[in-house]
Amino acid sequence: MTIETRTNADGMEFKQFGKRYRKVDGDEKVTGRAVFGADFTAPGSLFAKIVRSPHGHARIVSIDTSEAEAMPGVKAVCTAADFPSDVTGEVDTGEVDIGIQFLANLIMGSRKVMFEGHPVAAVAATDIHIAEKAAQRVKVEWEVLPAVTDPIEAMSQDAPLLHEGLIAASLSGSADAPSNIAGHMEAGKGDIEKGFAESDVVVERTYRTSLVHQGYIEPEAETVHWHADGRIEVWANSQGSFPLRQNMSNLLGVDVSKIKVIPLEVGGAFGAKNTPRVGPVAAILSRKSGNPVKIVLTREEVLKATGPASGAVVAVKMGATKDGVLKAAQARLVFGAGGFPGSPVLRGMQTIFACYQPENSKVDAYDVVTNAPRVAAYRAPGATVATFCGESTLDDLAREIGMDAIDFRIKNASKTGDSNIDDEVYNRIGIVEMLEAVKASDEYTRPVKPSENGWPVGRGVGIGWWPCGLEISSARVMVNHDGGVDVAIGAVDLHGIRTGTAQVAAETLGIEPEEVHVHTADTEGIPYTGNAAGSRVMRTLSQAVYKAGTSVIEQMKEKMAVRFGVDAEFVEYEGGYFYARDNQDSKVSFKDVGSTVTKNGSNITATASNDPGMRTANGYAMAVADVEIDPETGKVQLTDFTLFQDVGKVVNPTQVESQMQGGAAQGIGWALSEEYVFDDQGLMRNASFLDYRMPTALDLPLIKTVMLETPADDGAWGIRGVGEPPIIPPPAAIANAVRDAASVRMGRLPMNPERVFEAMKDSSPQFGD
Amino acid sequence: MTIETRTNADGMEFKQFGKRYRKVDGDEKVTGRAVFGADFTAPGSLFAKIVRSPHGHARIVSIDTSEAEAMPGVKAVCTAADFPSDVTGEVDTGEVDIGIQFLANLIMGSRKVMFEGHPVAAVAATDIHIAEKAAQRVKVEWEVLPAVTDPIEAMSQDAPLLHEGLIAASLSGSADAPSNIAGHMEAGKGDIEKGFAESDVVVERTYRTSLVHQGYIEPEAETVHWHADGRIEVWANSQGSFPLRQNMSNLLGVDVSKIKVIPLEVGGAFGAKNTPRVGPVAAILSRKSGNPVKIVLTREEVLKATGPASGAVVAVKMGATKDGVLKAAQARLVFGAGGFPGSPVLRGMQTIFACYQPENSKVDAYDVVTNAPRVAAYRAPGATVATFCGESTLDDLAREIGMDAIDFRIKNASKTGDSNIDDEVYNRIGIVEMLEAVKASDEYTRPVKPSENGWPVGRGVGIGWWPCGLEISSARVMVNHDGGVDVAIGAVDLHGIRTGTAQVAAETLGIEPEEVHVHTADTEGIPYTGNAAGSRVMRTLSQAVYKAGTSVIEQMKEKMAVRFGVDAEFVEYEGGYFYARDNQDSKVSFKDVGSTVTKNGSNITATASNDPGMRTANGYAMAVADVEIDPETGKVQLTDFTLFQDVGKVVNPTQVESQMQGGAAQGIGWALSEEYVFDDQGLMRNASFLDYRMPTALDLPLIKTVMLETPADDGAWGIRGVGEPPIIPPPAAIANAVRDAASVRMGRLPMNPERVFEAMKDSSPQFGD
Repeated sequence: MTIETRTNADGMEFKQFGKRYRKVDGDEKVTGRAVFGADFTAPGSLFAKIVRSPHGHARIVSIDTSEAEAMPGVKAVCTAADFPSDVTGEVDTGEVDIGIQFLANLIMGSRKVMFEGHPVAAVAATDIHIAEKAAQRVKVEWEVLPAVTDPIEAMSQDAPLLHEGLIAASLSGSADAPSNIAGHMEAGKGDIEKGFAESDVVVERTYRTSLVHQGYIEPEAETVHWHADGRIEVWANSQGSFPLRQNMSNLLGVDVSKIKVIPLEVGGAFGAKNTPRVGPVAAILSRKSGNPVKIVLTREEVLKATGPASGAVVAVKMGATKDGVLKAAQARLVFGAGGFPGSPVLRGMQTIFACYQPENSKVDAYDVVTNAPRVAAYRAPGATVATFCGESTLDDLAREIGMDAIDFRIKNASKTGDSNIDDEVYNRIGIVEMLEAVKASDEYTRPVKPSENGWPVGRGVGIGWWPCGLEISSARVMVNHDGGVDVAIGAVDLHGIRTGTAQVAAETLGIEPEEVHVHTADTEGIPYTGNAAGSRVMRTLSQAVYKAGTSVIEQMKEKMAVRFGVDAEFVEYEGGYFYARDNQDSKVSFKDVGSTVTKNGSNITATASNDPGMRTANGYAMAVADVEIDPETGKVQLTDFTLFQDVGKVVNPTQVESQMQGGAAQGIGWALSEEYVFDDQGLMRNASFLDYRMPTALDLPLIKTVMLETPADDGAWGIRGVGEPPIIPPPAAIANAVRDAASVRMGRLPMNPERVFEAMKDSSPQFGD
Repeated sequence: MTIETRTNADGMEFKQFGKRYRKVDGDEKVTGRAVFGADFTAPGSLFAKIVRSPHGHARIVSIDTSEAEAMPGVKAVCTAADFPSDVTGEVDTGEVDIGIQFLANLIMGSRKVMFEGHPVAAVAATDIHIAEKAAQRVKVEWEVLPAVTDPIEAMSQDAPLLHEGLIAASLSGSADAPSNIAGHMEAGKGDIEKGFAESDVVVERTYRTSLVHQGYIEPEAETVHWHADGRIEVWANSQGSFPLRQNMSNLLGVDVSKIKVIPLEVGGAFGAKNTPRVGPVAAILSRKSGNPVKIVLTREEVLKATGPASGAVVAVKMGATKDGVLKAAQARLVFGAGGFPGSPVLRGMQTIFACYQPENSKVDAYDVVTNAPRVAAYRAPGATVATFCGESTLDDLAREIGMDAIDFRIKNASKTGDSNIDDEVYNRIGIVEMLEAVKASDEYTRPVKPSENGWPVGRGVGIGWWPCGLEISSARVMVNHDGGVDVAIGAVDLHGIRTGTAQVAAETLGIEPEEVHVHTADTEGIPYTGNAAGSRVMRTLSQAVYKAGTSVIEQMKEKMAVRFGVDAEFVEYEGGYFYARDNQDSKVSFKDVGSTVTKNGSNITATASNDPGMRTANGYAMAVADVEIDPETGKVQLTDFTLFQDVGKVVNPTQVESQMQGGAAQGIGWALSEEYVFDDQGLMRNASFLDYRMPTALDLPLIKTVMLETPADDGAWGIRGVGEPPIIPPPAAIANAVRDAASVRMGRLPMNPERVFEAMKDSSPQFGD
């Protein structure tokens, strides 16, 4: 099997784009020498362990740290009492918001704990073994409370109340009754009832999904040094140095200018590492001890006490005419937020019908707190669940009116200039082009290969939409004494950013990527740059690099003008050479110009950020999945899987494909095997990678990728975001393939063998119950 | 006693200059938390030990590393054979030059060793104890050769020849005879014989000085990681990140763009840490092992095998008329370079008569190799020895014609527009003003306080000149989200640079230094910046900060113009507030503007370097020393010491005074107690701080300082260099005070008790013999 690239971009010609340039951080990573969060130890560091709640829901009666403090080797112990009590400011945790006071409480619980693993104290000692022992000697007296982890149960009036003061202002009529409902939002167009009335066929389904974790390989690991002069250094594996700096500033009550965040390599994040977890704790312990303090979480801590994706209950109702006009689309989304308000349910709302233009629509969304870990962003947060529910329902609707699944989608697809449920107008999109590419593809048109075992086989498709994010990215281009180029960026490189940026810089400067070295600077080294989140970095950063790079060329022209004895406007730069317009023989290479000018004492450097007014580029991806199902176990085996995605403009195909394959693999795990299992005390029963089942290479076919190029309107080169869309369609496509193979409509994720076996036994849909 | 500040600057008014702003790196340093070279350990580091010659001069017959390599824990062993054999390029080691091939040979000896401690191999192991043991098991077979450490002896035809191919091109007539003379230079004006003929009095003296060490507290300590992708990271306590990068590039044959130097705190350098010593060795061991490799020298290694200041033999002859006209000044300087060519004898030549305008002059200078450690720069390299010799002779001449020592100096002093011995014209200087300030001072005019012991007492003066250096400095000014300011500089901060730069930036930006954070960036973080050497940093860097700062203000004006709804030229900035010219009520503070603009997504940053055409500002300092001498032991006790220096413009008086006091203390050590003692095998017999006698606080009176301000012509604010001039005059002033007290003219440094006792016993001059 091969990985294909099919492009249909607008006839732009590039020298560096589209090349499979080697991953610049690859050597260091495969030889194990790249420095990730846990690899870094500051001189004189202490090592800290967090004391966590063993209960899903409890009141803290008292905490006695005296025995821990008295242990030899223990240098500092902290509880919520050591943190500023009055925190203010706006939190930046990427795409999933949380209020500052809730965030403070999430990081260090004060009066109550909301989930198993909720921190209540921390101990810093000269080695981690002492810290672990001392953590066990912190005595907490608990008043255990009943726990609720299901969002629908949590909405009930009888449910244990997590926050006594939580009153959702958005719930009209219940303004003074506290509940676990943190928010309720509504949106829609037209008249939904009229839409259903005009429909020939109406399909209604309810779905239920479990919490799933991003499953990044590298746990949260940070070191903080609160210096004697009041300045704070943070070595972090976060997704954004500047937002972390701002969050630390707000949480600790220290000016951002006093905080320096130094990014380390990040071993996976997917949205979760936008939220500060350990940095503020290490900071307080450092302030108390005077030493740098390092915290590295264990896998169990990561699963129990960082931010997974919401579990959700979603009801969908759609109606269409027999000739395939989507008359009505309605959904009610209930997302669990975990212990503190702020699930990505709003994004679920925006994405569930985004690929289509139903004549009438209505979506309402509930954000509900539960005794589960507080959720975080996970790659296109909210969209994967919403799309699974929307595309499953749509598939059944197409089936009931007897129309080809892709024809039905094309007929109702969103186009450039259409608007979404929030009345935002889509700038340039190519959803129809993508649907048509899929429809014409071999992957969709060839017959499903029969099972060698004689098992049922089937094929399904699903398409998902994601608005992608924006935010500022900054870059500095600097020429060295040997004419080589350093490019500093503010964005944390979660994947191929340094590699792609080397190509963007080379493209801009008219040189080869080998002449460019890209590194991520710390917060003192480059202007503000937002989180590496929202599939936004390559789009925004490429514009910043383009701006800085063209300024560098201008500076070099000015310097060469003096040498050529002409005005700067008569200096040309072409094919890597500067020359005076009237003298082609005057050609001097970029490298020689850079070397000569800088050795003469002039600096050649420029810093730029992308235009703050830049618009987002919409992203969308479609999956085609073939499955066979073992009827004796219910195990769904993927036999073929292809992901189509419009990436606007490919910078580095290998990096883009890796994103597509990685996202698809995560979506497949979400579809088939991953889930948090809680007992009735709210305790997680599968907090290890043995029991929390992520797909392995043995579970997956080669994930084929097809990159399409409808250039985005804005930015330097039509680049769209790449990272998030691939995770969205797999559960939908696989559920539709299961439906095709076994005539069962799976209403629950994951579609694990037990559930599929039960569904096939009953020959009936398995909806959320 | 108090520290006085007397200024006579040109009526410039400053808000931040002249203030004793706290040392910004002080807290971290006094609490022991600043990270110096030895404090830094990269993850996965190996620790290396250098194998060194036990002989002063020997041929390497063979090296057998097999036993060391076989030891468990040993990861790499290297010898000269592992280094590139063909090195090219220009070496940048600050003010004391060395050829690239000699430098390579100095760092790792190949066929011969030239001094005790000369490296011949190195071992990297998992801990330093294994490395030390393994280093002992490297078997070297030596052919020991006779050694010569005295430069005069080394010039003799019978002397052991260090370099068989060393033929000084400058020695006419001996072009094909190799010798230990590496160079001979001559300069002068007028007709020296005519000058002596016209003189009423001629004084002729010969002087001899010993090698002395800079005595920095922190040994050389560097870590190098040669990464799998061919890039090299260097964590160094060197004096210049960019010159080190260039030197590493040349020595290792790797492009500068592939090398990143990260500066650490430097615990003293004084010129010695311009020369790479351990970095290239660590690099080779890292390339061989794949791990970062750390090398930290011991004190013994520092004394035996880094670069002290030259020992010298200098003959001076001066003639004057009875009415005080300096008719003739002649000198012959012989400086020992240690094992490889390149002593600072040229600087000795330039400085010896620089404060004066003798009608006729002649100086010739010899650079001679000896079996001593290869010398390095030491604070005004060459000038201290030359000035001791020149000013001692001049003092005797004044005495013989019966003229006041200062009147004689004033009469013959160099003035703005005069030229030096190399025909370079002095830009603005205030030597006469300084001499007159000293003449009028209480320190010079009051009687010498009699000894309580009835011992002889005396007073002496000495004045020294130093051209000061130039070179590029770069700075970046960046405004943060809270309106605070980060300033990145390329210069390593050896003393008060960050503190002074905070004041310069605050002065430029119209804010307070507390709002500014200054840090030293690595070589990827800022454009080229030369060594922190030559007293040049504050002078050049302040111009770079001024340029970047004014650009930042312009950018902020442009942004505020939009907000005020006026053109940028109608926005004023005054007293820390921006306002529209026609609306005083529109005032917005720098902090608020910075915060608003950057939060809106614009970056506010500017990078600048000083003008490459900037000229040096001459430096000069004068000492007044009072002594009493114990006639029974010959011990010279300083009873009062004042240093006068023209600093052009004081930025931070405390930092300037610290430089003056530190430099004076080193000059006093040079004068009275410090020296390398070699045996006849060329082995150093006093390689510890117990036996190599630096002055302690108990040896010194409070060193009083008087800062004078004759602004320099060039640069942002008339700032002159500060660091080097204070070390120059102390030996001269003290020698003249000893002459005044005991009627003996000391011809040798140090003037230790033994030598002074002998001189007083003989009542005769003790010249170099």
